[in-house]
Amino acid sequence: MVVSFGSRFLAVDWGTTNRRVFLIAGGAVAETGRDDRGVTSVENFEAEAAAIRGRFGDLPMLLAGMVGSNIGWRPAPYVAAPAGVAEIAAGLLWIDDRTAIVPGISTLVGGRPDVMRGEEVQLLGAAAAGLVPASSLLAQPGTHCKWVEMQDGKVADFVTAMTGELFALLRKHGLLAAQLDGEVTLGAAFLEGVEEGKRQDIAASLFGIRAAKMLGRRDDADATSFASGLLIGADVAARLATSGHDTVHILADPMLGGLYSAAIEAHGRAAHLIDSHAAFVAGINEIVKQ
Amino acid sequence: MVVSFGSRFLAVDWGTTNRRVFLIAGGAVAETGRDDRGVTSVENFEAEAAAIRGRFGDLPMLLAGMVGSNIGWRPAPYVAAPAGVAEIAAGLLWIDDRTAIVPGISTLVGGRPDVMRGEEVQLLGAAAAGLVPASSLLAQPGTHCKWVEMQDGKVADFVTAMTGELFALLRKHGLLAAQLDGEVTLGAAFLEGVEEGKRQDIAASLFGIRAAKMLGRRDDADATSFASGLLIGADVAARLATSGHDTVHILADPMLGGLYSAAIEAHGRAAHLIDSHAAFVAGINEIVKQ
Repeated sequence: MVVSFGSRFLAVDWGTTNRRVFLIAGGAVAETGRDDRGVTSVENFEAEAAAIRGRFGDLPMLLAGMVGSNIGWRPAPYVAAPAGVAEIAAGLLWIDDRTAIVPGISTLVGGRPDVMRGEEVQLLGAAAAGLVPASSLLAQPGTHCKWVEMQDGKVADFVTAMTGELFALLRKHGLLAAQLDGEVTLGAAFLEGVEEGKRQDIAASLFGIRAAKMLGRRDDADATSFASGLLIGADVAARLATSGHDTVHILADPMLGGLYSAAIEAHGRAAHLIDSHAAFVAGINEIVKQ
Repeated sequence: MVVSFGSRFLAVDWGTTNRRVFLIAGGAVAETGRDDRGVTSVENFEAEAAAIRGRFGDLPMLLAGMVGSNIGWRPAPYVAAPAGVAEIAAGLLWIDDRTAIVPGISTLVGGRPDVMRGEEVQLLGAAAAGLVPASSLLAQPGTHCKWVEMQDGKVADFVTAMTGELFALLRKHGLLAAQLDGEVTLGAAFLEGVEEGKRQDIAASLFGIRAAKMLGRRDDADATSFASGLLIGADVAARLATSGHDTVHILADPMLGGLYSAAIEAHGRAAHLIDSHAAFVAGINEIVKQ
């Protein structure tokens, strides 16, 4: 089914716990709204879609993210990497003649299976809008950090590291939880953690946080920053070991983006922060054009 | 204070959640008992010691493990590695003239602080009793796996990896918990995990478990064994990368010992399982002799 979205349409970045709606007019964002109606808190997606149209306008709608997963509205099968705007546009799952879901991308990088769903819009948008070179290394830090090799504007390959999730688990449960109740700050302790992360030996480095306390070797106020540096550092070390790019382009909020930037610079590479909302809108516009 | 323990005495392996008492007579175990009165469930250690003597005999008593930590009876300061039986015996913390606590050992291996408390008795005992060569590599798998370089019968250096704790956290909380509810078996999926663990890239390899499910690449019944192999495999890979020993001597129960053995053999080294209770008794006897 090929339907024109026209110059006015709605785009929804619909994740597990949050949702952001964009009213796009002539390629620009005319209106936007964010709420906590992620897919896990929605039962009737048709009614939700109608409510969105009720608020933002009775327009064609393009949905991306977990809304296309098996916990969303309807599963949109993954498109295999390498995948660009054309492959994504060809893989749209049409709910009706003016409502479509963007498919995710799958890969088997070095025999390791990986998937993304939602991130592809930002990635392809960043390349299409010239926010990053058409062939470049991108990182999307978060609970599950995506590292993406773009080639000629396509997602050629990618790896997901559950760095943020491991950090959250360790702060909440187990031996280190009591020590990891501080704030993360970008300073000496974080960078010491990045250095330790170069060993890529997380299970032992983490126990070192406990031992440092027992031996009075580190102020416990620094433990959280050290742990963050360790996990982000190990993530960065693993990825840069197999990438020759001089620069990593980061799609993230300034706080997390700043931490990844510092870790990347500690490895002698450059880091470049990208506006992820601008990238999302650019990506949606490119998909709609096709 | 130097007091003779005589030929009949009590030895207690007193951990966080469990406790094992040995009545030693003429160097051999005359009687033993295990219960769940670990240090976290004990408030009055004097009364507990009296109760042990009430049951096993009014004898001198040597205590090892978390009983000597800051959550135990009284903190017994760590002895710095390299530490052998003589250093441990000299560092005993005497509660009274017939009750002593074995100190733990600390190290700063390659700038990374580490501590042990309780494991030292088994380790030194294994070497003293000839269960392992005086210079060898030992592993004590568990929640926190100890890897120990023995030199001339002393603990020269060691590293702790919280491999077991990470596995437990992942089975209980977060993205993978629902997939990791099976049993661990020593088979193809475990060995596939060991192979993946050679990357020493846990955060990304773990996400691969999720992706494999999404892409239908692995039967979910195998996910737990794969995850176990991955974590143990990464632990083994990190340790063998910095050790030239042909053989690793393992102090563990047969199940966990078997998993570590398989991972070590997958790295082309030999594994040798040791009776950890025999090692503990040998270690206590050596300390008492001095």
